[in-house]
Amino acid sequence: MADLATPAATPETAVDPANWTCPAPLHDQPVVVMGHGGGGALSAELIEQVFAPAYGNPVLAALTDSAVFDLGGARLAFSTDSYVVRPLFFPGGSLGDLAVNGTVNDLAMSGARPAFLSTAFVLEEGVELEVVGRIARAIGAAARAADVTVATGDTKVVESGHGDGVYVTTAGVGLVPDGVDIRPQRARPGDAVIVSGPIGQHGVAVMSVREGLEFGVEIVSDTAPLAGLVAAMLEVTKDLHVLRDPTRGGLGASLNEIARASGTGVLLRDRAVPVPEEVANACGFLGLDPLYVANEGRLVAFVPPEHAEAVLAAMHAHPQGTGAALIGECVADHPGMVVVATGLGGTRVVDLPLGEQLPRIC
Amino acid sequence: MADLATPAATPETAVDPANWTCPAPLHDQPVVVMGHGGGGALSAELIEQVFAPAYGNPVLAALTDSAVFDLGGARLAFSTDSYVVRPLFFPGGSLGDLAVNGTVNDLAMSGARPAFLSTAFVLEEGVELEVVGRIARAIGAAARAADVTVATGDTKVVESGHGDGVYVTTAGVGLVPDGVDIRPQRARPGDAVIVSGPIGQHGVAVMSVREGLEFGVEIVSDTAPLAGLVAAMLEVTKDLHVLRDPTRGGLGASLNEIARASGTGVLLRDRAVPVPEEVANACGFLGLDPLYVANEGRLVAFVPPEHAEAVLAAMHAHPQGTGAALIGECVADHPGMVVVATGLGGTRVVDLPLGEQLPRIC
Repeated sequence: MADLATPAATPETAVDPANWTCPAPLHDQPVVVMGHGGGGALSAELIEQVFAPAYGNPVLAALTDSAVFDLGGARLAFSTDSYVVRPLFFPGGSLGDLAVNGTVNDLAMSGARPAFLSTAFVLEEGVELEVVGRIARAIGAAARAADVTVATGDTKVVESGHGDGVYVTTAGVGLVPDGVDIRPQRARPGDAVIVSGPIGQHGVAVMSVREGLEFGVEIVSDTAPLAGLVAAMLEVTKDLHVLRDPTRGGLGASLNEIARASGTGVLLRDRAVPVPEEVANACGFLGLDPLYVANEGRLVAFVPPEHAEAVLAAMHAHPQGTGAALIGECVADHPGMVVVATGLGGTRVVDLPLGEQLPRIC
Repeated sequence: MADLATPAATPETAVDPANWTCPAPLHDQPVVVMGHGGGGALSAELIEQVFAPAYGNPVLAALTDSAVFDLGGARLAFSTDSYVVRPLFFPGGSLGDLAVNGTVNDLAMSGARPAFLSTAFVLEEGVELEVVGRIARAIGAAARAADVTVATGDTKVVESGHGDGVYVTTAGVGLVPDGVDIRPQRARPGDAVIVSGPIGQHGVAVMSVREGLEFGVEIVSDTAPLAGLVAAMLEVTKDLHVLRDPTRGGLGASLNEIARASGTGVLLRDRAVPVPEEVANACGFLGLDPLYVANEGRLVAFVPPEHAEAVLAAMHAHPQGTGAALIGECVADHPGMVVVATGLGGTRVVDLPLGEQLPRIC
């Protein structure tokens, strides 16, 4: 695919923001490529050019982690994700943990209290029932830890060679508290940008076991449910503007989506972004940028500046937020763009990645 | 698998109901077989022995088409299904139609008014984007026809050889009206058993195109949304006892599940079950029993006898119920068992099938 190799389409380009222009269209592939599932520009094109026109409705058009709507007098959040991570088990978790925490977190990113989950398995003929049982037990344990009930499910089986052991799709329903309105469009210049902990662990953990790499220290996935942390933040103020869990595409993709949805800019301070030393070393070795590596137990928050200090303190007091850090701010300059102020006094653009550096990371 | 070949495990056995005993355990397979996804005895074992213990909660234990619970003061139904039908397009519909109608119907079987759907795609690398677009447009059209909103979604991509073009998982949320309590446990001796139309069309339609068979007349899938029909039935009485859409495993599996869940028996009148002539002919040719062939736009209802006539009239007046027929009754005899009174004055047991006669039918 020639388009994939054009210089303008590399995930990061050191350009002057003032002279930056949108890369050439990338959507001339006639077939699905791995990047269409990567949470980057190709995923966004698939949504904007295929799904949104086909479904044609304003709820989907919001393109948030979860849909929020009123039903029977209740304000609900509703979300779904398929999980195709390879391998099924990795340091710190399994596909089962991701399938619960990923959907719980998507609901929490609307400020919702997650309540009920569904699980739908697509099993490959010949996979050991013991493996299915281990995944199911991981789902049960993760659901109890996240205080959600698995309420309904389905199982299909496909012939050997048409699956990869176990795929799981979860959907979730949660209740959005009164007065909470958290969505990417609400980012405002001046907002503090806060990340809940060190980034890059999940992606590097999966990559290390997939490729048989060892980095001296075992790096474990950060997979965790974040609804409790969000509830603690909402106790400080209901006026959180944006929450996002930077999974596929990492922090870089999430911040780009927020900047584009809100028409604001994001200015990060390079040295403020918490990257564990072992993650930085592994990324250096693998040629990855930690800003684009998937996380499964972290969130990024856009918080009105007057509440930033108190929200950060509340996060530090919660087990899932001990490593929280102020990493930058929302700005009126360079709308739709994420820029990093480097330690050397320069800046670089953090563009929306094309696809995922690490396919099938979740 | 020796267990799969034991005579006691064939889907139908001409035995005296009074002397019938449960077949030997079937669950000694160490690996997943196609039948685990067939909606029959192996599917039930997977739920009872793997998922229910792992998740351990009373909502899932109900094993209904959809879960029903209270959230934020609203009484909600929630359901999910994965769709892996092969081929993706068949006479009368596509995977996209099934993905909407199947989940809409699962919600409707709780008496709910379906409101919002999610769609999660697992795409195989290399599938044509045009195919994805056709499925998405079918989903959009089916959602509009069923008056539901596709509110949220996800897309993952797996490598070529780990999928089969397009798999879609939908989940749905609907609102259960006050005073409605429809579930398999509520079947009572005396209930009229009503089917909403002729059976077997979906399974035969898929099978014919899959195997390149022609039967003189084109048999088209019955895929259709049933929530409108259910609403018309509920206008007659809110006291419908059971609704079920006989998909995988067909009418035979659905009736067995109801009989077992309620501890009642079901007595069918063989000649009252509407089987279109072309379906009967095709089933004869293929060696299939129409009672076990999947339907995607039919329901079976257990209705208190005093309301049966009026409910049947309401069904006949609705486009999805013109072919509705009274096919039998719920009885106190042979609890947990479905028996057919044949035209010749004999009876035969309709057992829960082991798996699906036609794998990947939905």
